[in-house]
Amino acid sequence: MSTQTKYLLQESQLPKFWYNIQADLPKPMPPVLHPGTLQPIGPDDLAPLFPMSLILQEVSTEREIEIPEPVREVFRLWRPAPLFRAHRLEQVLGTPAKIFYKYEGVSPAGSHKPNSAIPQAFFNAQAGVKRLSTETGAGQWGSSLAMAGQMFGLDVTVYQVRVSYDQKPYRRALMETYGARCIPSPSNETEYGRAVLAQRPDHPGSLGIAISEAVEVAAKNEDTKYALGSVLNHVLLHQTIIGLEAMEQMHMADAWPDVIVGCTGGGSNFAGLAFPFIGHGLRGGAKPRIVAVEPAACPSLTRGKYAYDFGDTAHLTPLTKMHTLGSTFTPPGFHAGGLRYHGMAPLISHCKQLGLLDAVAYTQNQCFEAGVQFARAEGIVPAPEANHAVRGAIEEALRCKREGKAETILFNLSGHGHFDMSAYQAYFAGGLKDEHYDENELAQALSGLPSVPA
Amino acid sequence: MSTQTKYLLQESQLPKFWYNIQADLPKPMPPVLHPGTLQPIGPDDLAPLFPMSLILQEVSTEREIEIPEPVREVFRLWRPAPLFRAHRLEQVLGTPAKIFYKYEGVSPAGSHKPNSAIPQAFFNAQAGVKRLSTETGAGQWGSSLAMAGQMFGLDVTVYQVRVSYDQKPYRRALMETYGARCIPSPSNETEYGRAVLAQRPDHPGSLGIAISEAVEVAAKNEDTKYALGSVLNHVLLHQTIIGLEAMEQMHMADAWPDVIVGCTGGGSNFAGLAFPFIGHGLRGGAKPRIVAVEPAACPSLTRGKYAYDFGDTAHLTPLTKMHTLGSTFTPPGFHAGGLRYHGMAPLISHCKQLGLLDAVAYTQNQCFEAGVQFARAEGIVPAPEANHAVRGAIEEALRCKREGKAETILFNLSGHGHFDMSAYQAYFAGGLKDEHYDENELAQALSGLPSVPA
Repeated sequence: MSTQTKYLLQESQLPKFWYNIQADLPKPMPPVLHPGTLQPIGPDDLAPLFPMSLILQEVSTEREIEIPEPVREVFRLWRPAPLFRAHRLEQVLGTPAKIFYKYEGVSPAGSHKPNSAIPQAFFNAQAGVKRLSTETGAGQWGSSLAMAGQMFGLDVTVYQVRVSYDQKPYRRALMETYGARCIPSPSNETEYGRAVLAQRPDHPGSLGIAISEAVEVAAKNEDTKYALGSVLNHVLLHQTIIGLEAMEQMHMADAWPDVIVGCTGGGSNFAGLAFPFIGHGLRGGAKPRIVAVEPAACPSLTRGKYAYDFGDTAHLTPLTKMHTLGSTFTPPGFHAGGLRYHGMAPLISHCKQLGLLDAVAYTQNQCFEAGVQFARAEGIVPAPEANHAVRGAIEEALRCKREGKAETILFNLSGHGHFDMSAYQAYFAGGLKDEHYDENELAQALSGLPSVPA
Repeated sequence: MSTQTKYLLQESQLPKFWYNIQADLPKPMPPVLHPGTLQPIGPDDLAPLFPMSLILQEVSTEREIEIPEPVREVFRLWRPAPLFRAHRLEQVLGTPAKIFYKYEGVSPAGSHKPNSAIPQAFFNAQAGVKRLSTETGAGQWGSSLAMAGQMFGLDVTVYQVRVSYDQKPYRRALMETYGARCIPSPSNETEYGRAVLAQRPDHPGSLGIAISEAVEVAAKNEDTKYALGSVLNHVLLHQTIIGLEAMEQMHMADAWPDVIVGCTGGGSNFAGLAFPFIGHGLRGGAKPRIVAVEPAACPSLTRGKYAYDFGDTAHLTPLTKMHTLGSTFTPPGFHAGGLRYHGMAPLISHCKQLGLLDAVAYTQNQCFEAGVQFARAEGIVPAPEANHAVRGAIEEALRCKREGKAETILFNLSGHGHFDMSAYQAYFAGGLKDEHYDENELAQALSGLPSVPA
């Protein structure tokens, strides 16, 4: 048995191309629709918000899209990221399975989010953009874009959900360390923010409102564009660097996954690991089972409807076909803030429809229990979001134990939990509720989906 | 010019031996004295507190001491640690200097502390010890020992300074995640703690009191030993894995340091990087200039006296000769909690006396300014302690710029700042005071040093 723990790639092995799964899909993606005309939109419709280079990535069906050298130069600060064999966790579980995990917490921001923030900043800077606006909840995306903007000379303005702004000042301090402006949303800086505040001066904010503010600022200012941290095709494309590296590292380990597990909110870290393996299978290679793990309190893939819906609550975005709980659905306030989104990335939703992946849901106590078990065996304390992937992988390993199968499991440990220790503190104090959504609210949100003729 | 950013060693290159600088010193260390008899103590005097294997490391003059395989197995979870070339920082500074940094923030606890916590737990477990007691201030050492104890099946009890216990709950949550008990000190669990509380029920605690409680528990319980995170010879020995790896990595980079910089509190991360290079120089190799950077508010090397003193404020420890501000000196409450210690490691103090290293002191605003500059260039946000090393390295790089010299600078980035964002927050809010110690208090503390005949 190999006792090697880490599989490290040299900088010369850093991927030079992202992998675009749209090239290999047996059926093309449903079109994105204009919310007024219900007609498919074209690249120009998105031009006020994004630079054309990113829009072209959004719609591309080329298999390989080049990673520019200035992006790779920044990536070298932490990439290639390590792949670990979880020897110690395997021993604790007493499983015959081999467990591997790709670790994205080595980035300076502590998660996979810079994988897309860096290229988004680069392509915007290249297009002459001076400022990026974005929204953030807990702050993982906001801090990553703040770092990326700093590195390419862009000003970054982050609209942070006010309740998070007040309750989680450390991520805000990280954004400011990277030189970004962080504004509690709803704010007085936008028309939409002012309208919300006029109705309710102490409004706690929501991701939907923050998106609307960030989009408004980008739409109204020539020198400003908008950046989104998940869901969109080009964001998932950027994250495929995770899976491309992992494929090389599995070769180094002389192994190949039978099962791939990731956590899903908007879907970017999951797609980043899984898509290159799915594509390999579609092109005739081995077909690992792909398992998306989502929170039981926000189960878009397992309980949502596959339908056209808005990406935001204020209904400013185009309509995309995706697994959705309805854009008016408000997920309960569980700790894995990065997974609190009503919809699933259209690309992942499409793959689910095509039978290319499975989905399961766990409660947050189930996930924290797994995270603590992982930390005590492997040292690394996972982020609450990543605990969902840990739980999924442990379940697979225990299944292998029951079935006496020595399968190979690969999961994505998308970030460390050093910014989230208050959640662990609450868990140890017995204070985590397994908050369930309101079934009536879900039914209502689903019944309010926009009507789109087939 | 090489554009390589990281220099990574394979697991097979993980050092098999620690380096013991005592083998190469031109003059042996002054003896450790019994506080009552003022006579040199022997190994047996320390046996109530430490297992004999660690005591023998403490007094050894063997050059190489083997790292046991079970310790190396745990080290593989994050070691060998990367060495970085700070290309982007060099550009920002416009310096002809080459700046390299060894990064210890990749450990699961986020700092270099596990380098000694893991072997200390191993040697204690090997000696049949069931429980470790220790103290911690901000919690870096406590969380590292908590992780180490979990990995070798030892119960860990951490006495945390009460004010930190209340103000910094996240490190405590980390200790609990690793399964340790964390107790605010002064506590009702020890005689000494009860005596302090009887005098002042709301006592905020101090590192000195917490040490006394942890030592008392170890001295009174057959199955319990004590563990210290810095200062002692064997702790510095364990940290030499940093410098030993860095030497290999400098070879990979086809470079060798002209200057080595580290931050100093008790001295362990600094010694860990510097000692292997100092020893190499003592054995006839190149002699880099070695610069210890300490906080201006707790300047043991630059303002302290080289004298016999106690290691704790309660005067339970033996007397060691070291640079000290006096054991009754109370450092102001600056943010780099890991550097708030009245004394300097005896081995480092001895090297200073022998002219083997220099020391400088900076204020905390000077250090945070450097840390922010570093974060914006390199991405990684340093811990407040590590900001001292960053400042020292930047000063050297700017000197090189003034002098037109392309020197090679190597510094130790001993930990990341993700647990310390409240300090950055205060810095941006303009809230950091450059607290100065009271000159009268220092004079008084120094005049109260124990009288030891020459």
